[in-house]
Amino acid sequence: MARVYTSSVISAPAARVWARVRDFNALPNWHPAIAESRIENGEPSDKIGCVRDFRLRNGDRLREKLLGLSDYDLFYTYSILDSPMPLEDYVATLRLTPISDQDHTFIEWTAEFECAPERRAELVRSIGGGVFQTGFDSLKRHFGG
Amino acid sequence: MARVYTSSVISAPAARVWARVRDFNALPNWHPAIAESRIENGEPSDKIGCVRDFRLRNGDRLREKLLGLSDYDLFYTYSILDSPMPLEDYVATLRLTPISDQDHTFIEWTAEFECAPERRAELVRSIGGGVFQTGFDSLKRHFGG
Amino acid sequence: MARVYTSSVISAPAARVWARVRDFNALPNWHPAIAESRIENGEPSDKIGCVRDFRLRNGDRLREKLLGLSDYDLFYTYSILDSPMPLEDYVATLRLTPISDQDHTFIEWTAEFECAPERRAELVRSIGGGVFQTGFDSLKRHFGG
Amino acid sequence: MARVYTSSVISAPAARVWARVRDFNALPNWHPAIAESRIENGEPSDKIGCVRDFRLRNGDRLREKLLGLSDYDLFYTYSILDSPMPLEDYVATLRLTPISDQDHTFIEWTAEFECAPERRAELVRSIGGGVFQTGFDSLKRHFGG
Repeated sequence: MARVYTSSVISAPAARVWARVRDFNALPNWHPAIAESRIENGEPSDKIGCVRDFRLRNGDRLREKLLGLSDYDLFYTYSILDSPMPLEDYVATLRLTPISDQDHTFIEWTAEFECAPERRAELVRSIGGGVFQTGFDSLKRHFGG
Repeated sequence: MARVYTSSVISAPAARVWARVRDFNALPNWHPAIAESRIENGEPSDKIGCVRDFRLRNGDRLREKLLGLSDYDLFYTYSILDSPMPLEDYVATLRLTPISDQDHTFIEWTAEFECAPERRAELVRSIGGGVFQTGFDSLKRHFGG
Repeated sequence: MARVYTSSVISAPAARVWARVRDFNALPNWHPAIAESRIENGEPSDKIGCVRDFRLRNGDRLREKLLGLSDYDLFYTYSILDSPMPLEDYVATLRLTPISDQDHTFIEWTAEFECAPERRAELVRSIGGGVFQTGFDSLKRHFGG
Repeated sequence: MARVYTSSVISAPAARVWARVRDFNALPNWHPAIAESRIENGEPSDKIGCVRDFRLRNGDRLREKLLGLSDYDLFYTYSILDSPMPLEDYVATLRLTPISDQDHTFIEWTAEFECAPERRAELVRSIGGGVFQTGFDSLKRHFGG
């Protein structure tokens, strides 16, 4: 099993950051690598079990399933159903925690998956340093510093 | 703030117990104190934010909001919007954990709320020893021992 | 029960912040309100169950017991045995989490306790905004920003 | 990374089970595979960072380091420093949770480690089904059912 841990600080209250990232269908609105997204079967994007089918700007296509979401604990968990990446059993969680003394937000994005040992280092780097950190950087630009 | 912690063991695999309790609209199916339940606005019962309006066998009526649900971590969290109980800011979580050596389930039901100090002991008892334990006992009867 | 939650960001790696706060007898080294501290019975300050007897600059004296400590999860938990504050069943936890994208540290200091309802707001303010935030501010000055 | 999860139910209150397993030097008292144990450098066995050097009945010898311990959350975490097993970066946690409706104890023993892919299944089986479950079975015999 491989594990990715990426965390950062966003200069905005957790409620505002959550409003931007909560929607499981909203990746194109805040993540620069994502070109378009839709939820299959016309389901609400906060229905547990819904599937997002999205396309990256590089043309790759992924399908991911919403496994858990909490407006109380400010996180959501999802798995990959289909992707061009050579991995299996991928489960990721995006989580926000309020930073009380500045009204900012601590954001964590973690993932676990199985893959061939020789692919692990590269996948951890491209997911953590690539996908997750790119999302953080985009949120930082949006909310300022 | 008052806190309730109730936990028990159910003699069935976590997947089977989860199948019985997961549906936020299914209390009448497994909890003997609940007479009927419906989700407002025709929303799916696993859409985060949906509201259940249910009636107890004693005639009391409650409205509760689904704050979080995870098929990965096997829990759901909800708040009380309206109830005849003299409390505020009530948030509760029902959570399952697999017991690996027997394929049984550890079940926890917790709540936190605010109330007048002189009502606390009675409320903790009626919620924990009453509502939650009654639900556990009913699951135990259903799944056998 | 009352609850205090205070969190902040320190501009240094978690290992360096942990090295500064880990020692249960080191409050006088990093918290400006504390004048002197000693561990009772000559025990090591990282022995679970040890008691620190310390004096504030204002003359108040407290005794606190180390309930838990982890170099793996970077936290410690302690209770108050004796203090001039009108509270009971006080348990607090100081916890560090690495912020991966800057090599900084997310720090959380939480407490729970029982007190008379009319004292709650003031105690929450003096513990969270006073004691805990003063400690954070001192760490921030020490590690720069 | 490999992961082991083993859990069970012990028919005794958590305080009594904790009293039996808390001492990092007490494996020979409650785990039938362990012949003898000592803490290096004469340190207390609840000092975070202490090292236990113990010998199995089969002659194997291990050294493990106490990374964390909490009398509040009822768990301890340790790493392997030396062992005959072909693994690295081994960290394990033993944790108790009270089962409120019977005054029994839910016990979890988890581990994570790195190893050659072709050794993983066997190591997970021998650690989880072997070492951990053998410890649980011994506690069950001791406390009855």
